[in-house]
Amino acid sequence: MDNFTFYSPTYFVFGKDEENNVSEYIKKFNGNRVLIHYGGGSVIKSGLLDRIKASLDSEKTEYHLLGGVKPNPRSGLVYEGIEICKDKNIDFILAVGGGSVIDSAKAIAAGALYSGDFWDFYQNTPVTEALPIGTVLTISAAGSEGSGNTVITNENGMYKRGAKGDCLRPKFSIINPDLQKTLPAYQTACGITDMLAHLYERYLTNTKEVEVTDRLIEALMLTIIHEGPRVVKNPDNYDARANLAWAGMMAHNNSCGVGRSQDWASHKIEHELSALYDCAHGAGLAVVMPAVFKYNLKHDINRFAQLAVRVWGCSMDFYNPENTALEGIERLRDFLISIGMPYNFETLGAKEEDIPKLAHTACYGDVNKGTVGGFVPLGEDDVKKIYYMML
Amino acid sequence: MDNFTFYSPTYFVFGKDEENNVSEYIKKFNGNRVLIHYGGGSVIKSGLLDRIKASLDSEKTEYHLLGGVKPNPRSGLVYEGIEICKDKNIDFILAVGGGSVIDSAKAIAAGALYSGDFWDFYQNTPVTEALPIGTVLTISAAGSEGSGNTVITNENGMYKRGAKGDCLRPKFSIINPDLQKTLPAYQTACGITDMLAHLYERYLTNTKEVEVTDRLIEALMLTIIHEGPRVVKNPDNYDARANLAWAGMMAHNNSCGVGRSQDWASHKIEHELSALYDCAHGAGLAVVMPAVFKYNLKHDINRFAQLAVRVWGCSMDFYNPENTALEGIERLRDFLISIGMPYNFETLGAKEEDIPKLAHTACYGDVNKGTVGGFVPLGEDDVKKIYYMML
Repeated sequence: MDNFTFYSPTYFVFGKDEENNVSEYIKKFNGNRVLIHYGGGSVIKSGLLDRIKASLDSEKTEYHLLGGVKPNPRSGLVYEGIEICKDKNIDFILAVGGGSVIDSAKAIAAGALYSGDFWDFYQNTPVTEALPIGTVLTISAAGSEGSGNTVITNENGMYKRGAKGDCLRPKFSIINPDLQKTLPAYQTACGITDMLAHLYERYLTNTKEVEVTDRLIEALMLTIIHEGPRVVKNPDNYDARANLAWAGMMAHNNSCGVGRSQDWASHKIEHELSALYDCAHGAGLAVVMPAVFKYNLKHDINRFAQLAVRVWGCSMDFYNPENTALEGIERLRDFLISIGMPYNFETLGAKEEDIPKLAHTACYGDVNKGTVGGFVPLGEDDVKKIYYMML
Repeated sequence: MDNFTFYSPTYFVFGKDEENNVSEYIKKFNGNRVLIHYGGGSVIKSGLLDRIKASLDSEKTEYHLLGGVKPNPRSGLVYEGIEICKDKNIDFILAVGGGSVIDSAKAIAAGALYSGDFWDFYQNTPVTEALPIGTVLTISAAGSEGSGNTVITNENGMYKRGAKGDCLRPKFSIINPDLQKTLPAYQTACGITDMLAHLYERYLTNTKEVEVTDRLIEALMLTIIHEGPRVVKNPDNYDARANLAWAGMMAHNNSCGVGRSQDWASHKIEHELSALYDCAHGAGLAVVMPAVFKYNLKHDINRFAQLAVRVWGCSMDFYNPENTALEGIERLRDFLISIGMPYNFETLGAKEEDIPKLAHTACYGDVNKGTVGGFVPLGEDDVKKIYYMML
């Protein structure tokens, strides 16, 4: 196991109706002038935004509103948010939404205390300072409610890049599974896929002797595979959503990823797809993951076989472990199809002719250094082949 | 799943040689006048205390020393520590040791800011304020390095009681598995038993639909069962110790215990043993757990059967799940014996004639309310029967 530090200071408030106490938590973390950041129709239609405003009004807390975050959140709105923060002397940002809203809030939080262009942080400038953030989660998927990570799409060129820093970890996150009841099945399934991807990216490691984190990752995968389809079939199943929500947070707060090298090839290869086609990140991952894993299979057959046996219930083929390893990937693919995810370029809405450009941007766009992935460093040619496997 | 809050703000620094940077972390959390709290010979003999002093000297940080913590830490030394803190205006406590040292440091930290008797906290007065604590861990077992819990033995009557509070969670914990290499096998095995107990206490729940925490608990148990014997057999196995150390922390920081009722009958029944006979807490648990579980088996056969199948590798007896449930408990007992733990009153050094007194104190001593345990509330007669099962 490698040396590591782990810091997850977020105060999690989990369960029914907890969002109605949001002002209490903002006070607890010294918020006085709040920017409420959100997306579009659903938080308004459902009355959630009104309830949050009522909670802040009850404490006479000053707040300003910035809605309009879209899936694959964009740089334009971040600049707008930073302006508001500076102008109104905002001291706390409340993100009401899913991963996109929270990621956008993190970008604003970092940019508000920075004299340069916030995009620097998405080009490897370390984030050391940010306004405090709180979240009211409406989609369990990205795990951004418990992580120090953020991904933004630069509108100048339409590419996605990530930033991270401990100061970006939310001060509190309110997770009420009931708020997710009205999510369409497709969006729920995209979230399930993203959670699984966060676990695969950590599972695919070159670090030896990492039994504890292997086992924790497997535990979360088993939970997601059990609870995911129950939620897709029955959106009102509170308990299944609750299990899924905590699994989604744990999948990305990195308690199960410490002390080991990680991969993240699938995320980087996917980011080009959702940036170019504006598809859901989870949908893109459903198409990307099986291809990447098959391509990398021979790098460590036993690792894929272990996952196949422990998580996907495959029988170990002791004469030919590669068969078992491959079967595990097939079961992942079948699972993703069973919850309604796309499985190739066509069902995703991607185009074969874009492949050379996608592969080039994944490997060389912006700050990328010629390869993607920590498990197997994949060059432009590898990535091109992987995209072709998705046709 | 029940509503819950979860807060684990400890900054974990994990890996080789990290204790040499301890002064950096004390500064990070604003420590200027430090009480270094420790046990006896080993931290002195190994040179660990000298290295820590050197680290503080290098930053010219003022410090005072208070050694002498014994296993099953006692109230007398806590009062002494509180005096020093008040007298020297201490603003940070550094615990160098295992669970006993850390628990004693937590008691001092709470008492130093309190005008009354610190023992109030161990009689259900909530702990809302405490001096900040840091830890350098030398034994992975109690999980105190990542928890807000503390257990102290009151010398006036020799009974153990616990207190807890988020403010007791360490600001940082340095976990270097190498520091545990010199631990005797017996002490390592006691630690392994304590970790397993922390997981059983959480697994035994009456809350339905808790798949995610079930799976996480099972993952940690599987890790401990795999890595524990490797460490007992080969104390120098860094990787096995590292996996065990992270599992031990995760077993008790409560990320796997949220949203569900918990038991803690075994701990309460054990506390009377280690308080009276001054045996190791883990050794006491090894004797207590199989008896408690067998006694409670019929309360929820499926829960014990699930654990037997998923963790202990038992085959499910679908015609008679009770057989499977029982087999799981037998495998736990065999496992504990295999790592050198005692298995009855005699091997533990406890006495049959004390049973009535033990049972009475467990149920009625001090703040206890007539029963112990959240899974099955056990009255004095039940507890007496359970102690007799240990003969």
